[in-house]
Amino acid sequence: MGKILVFGHKNPDTDTITSAIVYSYLKNQVGQDTEPVRLGEVNGETQFALEQFNVEAPRFIETAANETDQVILVDHNERQQSVIDIEEVRVLEVIDHHRISNFETSEPLYFRAEPVGCTATILLKLFKENNVDIPKNMAGLMLSAIISDSLLFKSPTCTEEDITAANELAQIADVNIEEYGLAMLKAGADLSGKSVSQLISLDAKVFEMGEHKVEIAQVNAIDPGEVLALQKEIEDVLDLVIVEKSLSLFVLAVTDILNSNSTIIVRGAHTEKVEQAYNLPLVNNQALLEGVVSRKKQIVPVLTEVFKG
Amino acid sequence: MGKILVFGHKNPDTDTITSAIVYSYLKNQVGQDTEPVRLGEVNGETQFALEQFNVEAPRFIETAANETDQVILVDHNERQQSVIDIEEVRVLEVIDHHRISNFETSEPLYFRAEPVGCTATILLKLFKENNVDIPKNMAGLMLSAIISDSLLFKSPTCTEEDITAANELAQIADVNIEEYGLAMLKAGADLSGKSVSQLISLDAKVFEMGEHKVEIAQVNAIDPGEVLALQKEIEDVLDLVIVEKSLSLFVLAVTDILNSNSTIIVRGAHTEKVEQAYNLPLVNNQALLEGVVSRKKQIVPVLTEVFKG
Repeated sequence: MGKILVFGHKNPDTDTITSAIVYSYLKNQVGQDTEPVRLGEVNGETQFALEQFNVEAPRFIETAANETDQVILVDHNERQQSVIDIEEVRVLEVIDHHRISNFETSEPLYFRAEPVGCTATILLKLFKENNVDIPKNMAGLMLSAIISDSLLFKSPTCTEEDITAANELAQIADVNIEEYGLAMLKAGADLSGKSVSQLISLDAKVFEMGEHKVEIAQVNAIDPGEVLALQKEIEDVLDLVIVEKSLSLFVLAVTDILNSNSTIIVRGAHTEKVEQAYNLPLVNNQALLEGVVSRKKQIVPVLTEVFKG
Repeated sequence: MGKILVFGHKNPDTDTITSAIVYSYLKNQVGQDTEPVRLGEVNGETQFALEQFNVEAPRFIETAANETDQVILVDHNERQQSVIDIEEVRVLEVIDHHRISNFETSEPLYFRAEPVGCTATILLKLFKENNVDIPKNMAGLMLSAIISDSLLFKSPTCTEEDITAANELAQIADVNIEEYGLAMLKAGADLSGKSVSQLISLDAKVFEMGEHKVEIAQVNAIDPGEVLALQKEIEDVLDLVIVEKSLSLFVLAVTDILNSNSTIIVRGAHTEKVEQAYNLPLVNNQALLEGVVSRKKQIVPVLTEVFKG
């Protein structure tokens, strides 16, 4: 039967990796036998956070059913974002802060989703509800996740609850939020030495929208111009991915984390859906979306509506 | 925009009706403007509970979008069990204890499902998490829901958490659980004066299993023989419903609440699925399932597996 595996989504970000570690820790404290694992490479930002708090990265897995029949999902619920053999294992729990889609079970489970900015904010509640003390390093990881998902509280996904949680966690972890946060975000926005393929798969997710498969990738940058200079090469790679995965659309959002906007590069057979969604023309397959920094709140829902409508 | 409507599933049972009332009360206490409503007739058991604690039944609605654009679902999440125009409103929250299926949103929401025996057990936690006092009548309604869903703690769906919650609520409501519980269950099992159509729709739910639509109805009885004597007439009505709703299967479980077993009457083009699921033959479209009292735990999952397999 094996340990219960705890993991987040493919192309893991800081919230996904740290939530797997932290929730597995919590479950073990209340007497369950779990192990955090990951479905992809640890990115530079997450690596920075793990080193800061002296925690090992979880083990990489390609499939789950070969070693367990029970899993816990954190930071995602959509099947296509999960481990490839998700259908062959039983999902015991889901802790998430995204929309619910393409998810079903044949038996009741613990499913806890809240419309907050970060899974870690929910995890903090779960520590309290279970009366488990939060060690300094776990607090540091949860804080890192909130800073990452909220872009230091600038994202529209960020709620009062996230801010309160971050302040509480910063006290336990004993770090200065602004100082540590900016250093961590900069570590994540360091794109040097990355190939175009690596860039677009750093934080990419596939969504089902009506009958269509849409991939939306996001790259955080201090200097978006650096990424946009590679547009021709990026488009070639997007076109390949579109064919490979039978996508209707690929949206790459290059997010300027200092000025809080995103330039999107759009490819695929349905680029007009993006023009409809934002009511602006694509010029040279590109558009600047003022104030848009959140895929979850400002891209996925508007595109979903247009594809369904 | 209208009030936020709070409702449970079609063919409401005690947990669905009382959870709508109780959760709406809780939401209003924390400053939201909600109203509990119902999607069907109040059954005898629920009526007994409402009278005992002097609470009015919620208002009946046929559709939601004509009066609001925001709803909260309690005690269900599957679309086909909800209000008919569920696609036209936004689901803000779900509080449930069933499997998750045929549910999706385009935006994040508060989704709280736990594998406990009753929605009321989760609601008790939510009162505590929100620091809201529980009035006597609300405690009485939550207690009634737990007794109903757990058949006075005899159902395999009943967890330690449900029992602890029931005891806590009985104290607040100031009632003797055994005495009150048995009287309430008996009120629900009083089938006198009910037509066959009424009997089979008292507590009926439609499930999607693979490509198939399966309806599973349950009737609680003190004397199952009373219901089984009507088998011929029941079968005629089931056959009509099967055609009307394009069902692959209809299972009617007549549950003996004193002896904790169920006799099923099965109709439709796929009755062999039931024989496979329980590894026993149907004789005269009927079988006795020893120890089976829970649709959620002992019927839906096994049938789902067989239909998918």
